[in-house]
Order: sequence, then C-alpha cells, then structure tokens
Amino acid sequence: MTKDASNLPPNSSPPSTSKGLEGVIALETAICDIDGTKGTLIYGGYDIQDLAAHCTFEEVTYLLWNGHLPDRIQLDHLNRSLTAERSIPPMVKELLAITPDDANPMALLRTAVSALALFDGEADDMSPDSNYRKSVRLTAQIPTILANFDRRRKSQDPIPPLRDGSIASNFLYMLHGEEPGEAAEKTFDACLVLHAEHGLNASTFAGRVIGATLSDIYSAITGALGGLKGPLHGGANIKVMEMLMEIDRTGSDPKQWVLEKLNNKERIMGFGHRVYKTLDPRAAILRDMLSKLSSERGSSKWFDMSMVIAETVVSEKGLHPNVDFFSASVYGTLDIPSDLFTPIFGMSRISGWTAHLMEQWKDNRLIRPRAAYVGPRNLKTGR
Amino acid sequence: MTKDASNLPPNSSPPSTSKGLEGVIALETAICDIDGTKGTLIYGGYDIQDLAAHCTFEEVTYLLWNGHLPDRIQLDHLNRSLTAERSIPPMVKELLAITPDDANPMALLRTAVSALALFDGEADDMSPDSNYRKSVRLTAQIPTILANFDRRRKSQDPIPPLRDGSIASNFLYMLHGEEPGEAAEKTFDACLVLHAEHGLNASTFAGRVIGATLSDIYSAITGALGGLKGPLHGGANIKVMEMLMEIDRTGSDPKQWVLEKLNNKERIMGFGHRVYKTLDPRAAILRDMLSKLSSERGSSKWFDMSMVIAETVVSEKGLHPNVDFFSASVYGTLDIPSDLFTPIFGMSRISGWTAHLMEQWKDNRLIRPRAAYVGPRNLKTGR
Repeated sequence: MTKDASNLPPNSSPPSTSKGLEGVIALETAICDIDGTKGTLIYGGYDIQDLAAHCTFEEVTYLLWNGHLPDRIQLDHLNRSLTAERSIPPMVKELLAITPDDANPMALLRTAVSALALFDGEADDMSPDSNYRKSVRLTAQIPTILANFDRRRKSQDPIPPLRDGSIASNFLYMLHGEEPGEAAEKTFDACLVLHAEHGLNASTFAGRVIGATLSDIYSAITGALGGLKGPLHGGANIKVMEMLMEIDRTGSDPKQWVLEKLNNKERIMGFGHRVYKTLDPRAAILRDMLSKLSSERGSSKWFDMSMVIAETVVSEKGLHPNVDFFSASVYGTLDIPSDLFTPIFGMSRISGWTAHLMEQWKDNRLIRPRAAYVGPRNLKTGR
Repeated sequence: MTKDASNLPPNSSPPSTSKGLEGVIALETAICDIDGTKGTLIYGGYDIQDLAAHCTFEEVTYLLWNGHLPDRIQLDHLNRSLTAERSIPPMVKELLAITPDDANPMALLRTAVSALALFDGEADDMSPDSNYRKSVRLTAQIPTILANFDRRRKSQDPIPPLRDGSIASNFLYMLHGEEPGEAAEKTFDACLVLHAEHGLNASTFAGRVIGATLSDIYSAITGALGGLKGPLHGGANIKVMEMLMEIDRTGSDPKQWVLEKLNNKERIMGFGHRVYKTLDPRAAILRDMLSKLSSERGSSKWFDMSMVIAETVVSEKGLHPNVDFFSASVYGTLDIPSDLFTPIFGMSRISGWTAHLMEQWKDNRLIRPRAAYVGPRNLKTGR
C-alpha cells in the first residue's frame, strides 16, 4: 500500500473548505498559546513577559522541550550539552568555505543544516532520546554556522565557539571577536526568548507536515527554515532596519520623515500586528532593554530614532510598535548585518520548531488536507 | 506588522477541528484529480493510462506545468532546455565529493538541491518566467546529482550527462555507463510518468506551505524532498524490493513464502491502496512493460517472482498489486540499488511539485491553520 497522496479520505464525510486553512484547527499543542485580543503570549503556561525578564534562552528552550522549567541540575546538564555540541563537522566547514560570499544567508543556513545530517550517525534514529540529542545539536550549531559564514564573507577568520557561556554571549563573541557587555548579552538573550516560539506559524507548520511523514528532524528543520525565509513570514525586522538606515543615510528628521510617509498614505514598518489587537507584549520588553543597551554601547542612534518614530506613529495613527520594530534597533545597535536578522530568528525559533516536532512524534498522524479539482476532464491524447 | 505565527484568524468564526486535516479542503487545483472509488487518476484532464502509453515524461511535465500538452515546437523547446541544463555547478560537485559514501541518498539529494540555490543567480527571483526556468533546471539536474552520488559511492567516476536523449535514457546511462535498451528506456520513462503527480500528498503540501510564504522554489522543493523521505510517504517500493530480495536470498518458493506469511497474518507489501478501492490504475501499465523489459534484459527473475506473488495474493486475499509492487521489480530488473527508489520518486515528482508551486504563486495565500492550546495556564516563575 502506498501512503503517497490520497486526496480522498477513507470515509467521505462532506468536506469542509477553507482556503489557506484559515480558522481550521489542525492539531492540539501544549507548547504555546496566543491571545491576540488580550495581547498575551504564553510558553507552556508562563507569560512571555515573565520569561523574558527572568529566564535565559536556555531555560526557555528547556521549558519548550520538556513542558516545565528546569531545576538547577537540569539546567546545568542542558548548558553543558549545548556548549559541548557547538563545533560543526569539518565537512560542513568545507561547505561553508565553498559557499559564495554573496549567498543568501537563509539559503546558506538551510543548506548547512541539511548537510549536518550527512555527518550525524544518528540522523535517521527516530527514538525520542535521539531526537532530543539532535535538537540540542541543532540549537548549539546553528549559531556557529551563521557566525562562520559572516566572518568568512567579511574575509575574517572564523572564530571557534567558546566552551562556556550562554548561546547569546557566544554568538556575539563568534561574530565580533570580543565578548559582549552585560546589557548586550542580556538584550540579545531576551530577543532569542521573544522569538523562540509563536504557535502554528507557517514555518512551524511546514516542519510538522514534514515530520508527520516520520521523516527525520533535519528534513523537518530544513523545511521550516525554507518557510521562515519567505518575506510573508520572517524578515519584517529587516524592513524596519532598512527604514532606519534610509533615514540615517538621507540625514532626515525622523519625525518629519514619518509624517511625510503617513501623509502619502505609505505604511510605516514595525507597527500594528495581525494577531495582537492591543499591544504586542514582546515590544515593551525590548524597548526598555534597548535603552540600557544603547548606554552600554555608547551609541543611542537607533534607539533615539526609534523612540521618535514610535511616538509619532502612536500619536498620529494610534498604532503601537511590535516586536520587529525594536528588535531591528537592538540588532542594529549590536552591529549585526541586517541580512542576518532572519537567520537569527531561525537560531531562536529552532527551540520552538524542535519542541513542535517532538510533540508531533509523541502521537503522530499524517497531516494531509485535500485539494478540490477544478481542471478539465475527459481529454484524450488521441494517439 | 509581523506575519509570523498568528494562531488566530482576524474574524473568529467558530473553528472547525480536523486532526491531521483529514477531509479538509485546503485549496483548489487544476493539476490532478484522483477518484479512488472508480480507480482513476488524471493529470490536467488526461487519464494516466492514456498518458503512460502515449506520452513521454517530458511531455507530461509540460502538461503539468502549462495545463495542456505541447505541440512539436513547444516540446522541442522544452527538450532543448532540459538537455542544456543537465550539468550541475562545480561547487555542488564538490559537495558531492565530500559527502560520505554511506549517506542517506534522500538526505544527500535534499542537501544538494538546497545547495543549487547558492549557485543560481536568480534563486530569489519570484517572477513566473524565472520560476519556470528554475523548474526546468531542477528537473534536469536532480538525475545528474543522483547518478553522480551513486557512481562516487561505488568508487566509479561520475559520467557527465549526454547532450541529447530523454531524461529516462540519460539517467540510466549516467548510472550504468551504457545506453539502455528500448524497453528499458520506455519502462523507466513510464515509471517517471506514473510517479510525476498525485495530488496534495504530504510532500506536495509541505512544498506549497513553504512556497505560500513567498519563499523561493529551492526552499519549497528542499522541504518537499524532506517530506518524501519519510517512511509514511515515499519508500513503499523499497519494502517490496526487500521482500523480493529476501525470497531470492533464502531460495524460497515465492508461493509458499506468501502463503506462510498470510497464514501468520503478516502483511504482504505492495498490495491494496488506501485511495484506490478497486485497482491502482498505474499497476497494470507497469506489469505489461515489465514483461517486455525482462525479455530485453534476459533476466526475468523479479518479473517471474512478482507474478507468482501477485497471483497468490489476489486469489488468497482478493487484494490487487499497486504501483509500488511493480515499480520495485522494474527498478530491480534495471539494476538500480533499492535505496535510490525514493530519490527516483523525487526525480519524477519534481515535475508535480514545481507545477503545484507555480499554481500556488498565481493566486498566493498563506497556508496557516490553527492549533488548539491544551497546556497549562497562569504559571509564574516566581523570580
């Protein structure tokens, strides 16, 4: 019996139609809940503001994977595993060495993550323990891949990962060759927490569809990265950064620039949210951190500009800044190139993606909607 | 505004729940229709039996991409484009050179297809013309990747693609170093036609979910290959081949072997079909071709064994052989290693996947179901 295709369910109850599957519930999850009306986001029962203020990305990753926060021993163990797995296989380094400098960083990351499977002896082991170990490796190695690529394309030697410290701190170290300040590490870590998980978005859903064929974790994550690459999904904070850079380059007054755009009925990037009707709960957290980060870095250019833009849009349009708006300024202040913003989103979301896959495989079921055929019938080749 | 996630639709009409999305219609298509009750499968209005008997894989690919069969000039043009694009970029050859011999061929294919994007200057061009050109390249280059990998792992020099001839003939030539006989080419070509398309199966659906974020075609195809790799999707004919090889290795009488398995309530692979309630329309076509192929090759071992097994299962259980049952024997008779069966499925299905993506992008809409949250609430870190 082939499991391929099967547009038709065994029992043909009248099908429900929903273009784009909008409003259709595909599965149950205990990982994340979003209440757009109230403006709340919870991971495993904890409010995102509580987590971002009090927990590290590693603790949140543990929560997403295990359904509860770690105690000290559990966290130490996870931290040790994550730091031990930071090095990437030599052959993946070779792949990075032959990658063109002008490669799309998301295409590079997708390819390198797919290649990791070729050098992982347990890539096709579908036991829960093995998938947990591979989730650790993926979470540990994606930052190394990204930093290696960015150093190489700037004709700098890649910096091997540190054997201790947080993912946030080690990533900034591998990128810039110096350990970040306290506010830099803390703010970047909070960005990783804030982007770690957001329900059944397109990349997570793509990953679960692939995983539900009982394909391996590298296949599913490679597919999720491919989905995140799409401009309708990841990438909103790149557009915010492009706006900030345009204002900076043209020496415009930010308030005048915004007023002119609004006057021309143009959209200002980074405001409002399709899900959150009130305030994006993630935005306020970042704004406060950005202020401290700017002091530490002695560079408040992006923060100052962002605050003026935000005040102007709030007073003119009543729209509030979202998480993308402030994460652009955070990454800009940390001297991170804007084309790494989406890969960094993936470096954070890997924790949510792998959590969803492990949840999928606990009670797996093929995910397989139907298509309605609207084409011609009864044609003959006549040969 | 971030497009990420959004578990909640803008208008909260009561959601319909369907685990695994069974019976839910996600989209409309003019590419393929399957009627399991009648046992019919049509591509763009043409019955699969008509197409397999009278059209080449290249003609069928044109049909899937354009919605109509090509005239002579259109077909010549497609054939010229396909043959001109068979060579793979030198850097992808390097990737193949550093791939371990024991790599999972689907993991290798997924990685190499993802890597093609790094060396395609128009990888991120989303214009319809560019996506058509990339569909041509993907269809032309996947066979070269597979044959290159198989030669290398057998410590043989890869054979460059021919500059003419069909995809079927050129692939068998690159694999074995000699041009196939007429029955071999024709039968293999028919296998490509029969596997080219089959509706909204898990790999095609994964590809459309990724494509619907407006991510590029390489991202979507990489994800589709990841889905096809899953044992619940591709791979059924591998299990048939393993059965044939076990009977051969143990020198068993095929009829006695089957009767014993049935007696022990064990399942015989390659019989019945979840979709087709009567006969899999693709199976009969292959059976007749396999007979001629066996004469041409002077090797009827797998054919003879398959016929005995089929007759026994039909008379004992009333179950009919499906397409996987006979494609295993076809590939076995053509001396194709069984771990290439699923990659060859992908080498054929690339035509259907790319057709679905081009259809998706004509009237794109994000594909985004919801998840129902069933986890805890109101937890506090207490820090």
